[in-house]
Amino acid sequence: MTEVGLFEAMYTARALRRLKPDPVPDELITRVLDAAIRAPSGGNAQNWVFIVVRDEAQRHRLGAVYRKASDEVAEIYAARGRPAHLTDEQYQRLMAGGSYLWDHIGDAPVLLLPCLRKREMPPRDALPDEVAARYDAHLIHQEKIRGSSIYPAVQNIILACRALGLGTLITTNHILYEDEVRAILRLPDDVFTFALMPIGYPLGRYGPVARRPVSEVAFADRWGDRWSG
Amino acid sequence: MTEVGLFEAMYTARALRRLKPDPVPDELITRVLDAAIRAPSGGNAQNWVFIVVRDEAQRHRLGAVYRKASDEVAEIYAARGRPAHLTDEQYQRLMAGGSYLWDHIGDAPVLLLPCLRKREMPPRDALPDEVAARYDAHLIHQEKIRGSSIYPAVQNIILACRALGLGTLITTNHILYEDEVRAILRLPDDVFTFALMPIGYPLGRYGPVARRPVSEVAFADRWGDRWSG
Repeated sequence: MTEVGLFEAMYTARALRRLKPDPVPDELITRVLDAAIRAPSGGNAQNWVFIVVRDEAQRHRLGAVYRKASDEVAEIYAARGRPAHLTDEQYQRLMAGGSYLWDHIGDAPVLLLPCLRKREMPPRDALPDEVAARYDAHLIHQEKIRGSSIYPAVQNIILACRALGLGTLITTNHILYEDEVRAILRLPDDVFTFALMPIGYPLGRYGPVARRPVSEVAFADRWGDRWSG
Repeated sequence: MTEVGLFEAMYTARALRRLKPDPVPDELITRVLDAAIRAPSGGNAQNWVFIVVRDEAQRHRLGAVYRKASDEVAEIYAARGRPAHLTDEQYQRLMAGGSYLWDHIGDAPVLLLPCLRKREMPPRDALPDEVAARYDAHLIHQEKIRGSSIYPAVQNIILACRALGLGTLITTNHILYEDEVRAILRLPDDVFTFALMPIGYPLGRYGPVARRPVSEVAFADRWGDRWSG
């Protein structure tokens, strides 16, 4: 099999919400994970853990939490309404896909949960005075940047699935009831989930991902000056 | 030019901290951005904005903030010490590379800052009672998942740079002094930066990224049961 080109993978890795129940060989999941861990993480700490859920009872427990959280999140979507850059048809399709997923996520043959172990801040008195004085600012900073050490790996998972003929997408609604998810997975107190990714052979097709063009979302040097590269 | 394969790009996209000052053609940056926006975002909202800083004065202003923040963050690294999975040599190399970057980030020909516009929560009274009652939980949830709508695009930037012969990496230290960065870029009140990515032609080489193996970081079905795919 010829390797899928990088740009081809990035441009066709659609969010695939409809998956076949057929099992996915463990070797393929291992290849996906081996690609995931090539991503960067802050200070190269690699504080990640990936939970691969194949057990049916576990999948359905997670699916029930996802469903409960999604019912609430749906109300926020409804109150916000359609984003301006989506056509009505695109928006209806997105909502229909979401709704399908809320009912069926536990039926995917694999649910993958990328997690991070929280890095402890050193105690205040282990730091020089001028840093210790800004301890709270550092705590906030560490919260803000946490996702930078796991979502790059998540994107590698999406791209690797595309290359291997698998479908997946990022979902995060379950984090609204994170404690229930953490109990199901028996995560230690300092480990948190960042995504719930159903993986399976897709019923739908890969295809071009439509986006707002670069000219609308890029600026040169500062806000307001259009990028015209 | 043959397109770089997906796995080749993922496995060789090292964090390249030493960059040539030579200018990068605007068309290449546009290709990188066009790859970035193929990434997913929550609800396909695409609330991202990318600021491409080429102006020397702007680069040096950002570099000064990055330097100031990094001097503090370095003390936290020092207090934590070497992560167990890195050899002493790997750790020294990481620290030396970081230190070089703190001095030179403003000399990179391009500084790219991926940003997100914060999505407002709908007002409490626009939501059904049972969701309104959990309004604070939803606010926390939205904070937690924000990075999932921008760091996948950041990983696409890293991979696209690799394919186009450019070097880059994710840095986040500047977020410790985010208000100063936002003033330099004249960002509106609801727009925040998530990374500062120097981009240029690399002095170093692409190369295999060494990582803790999958067998150490993956579990089957729940915490503690080793994944042995």
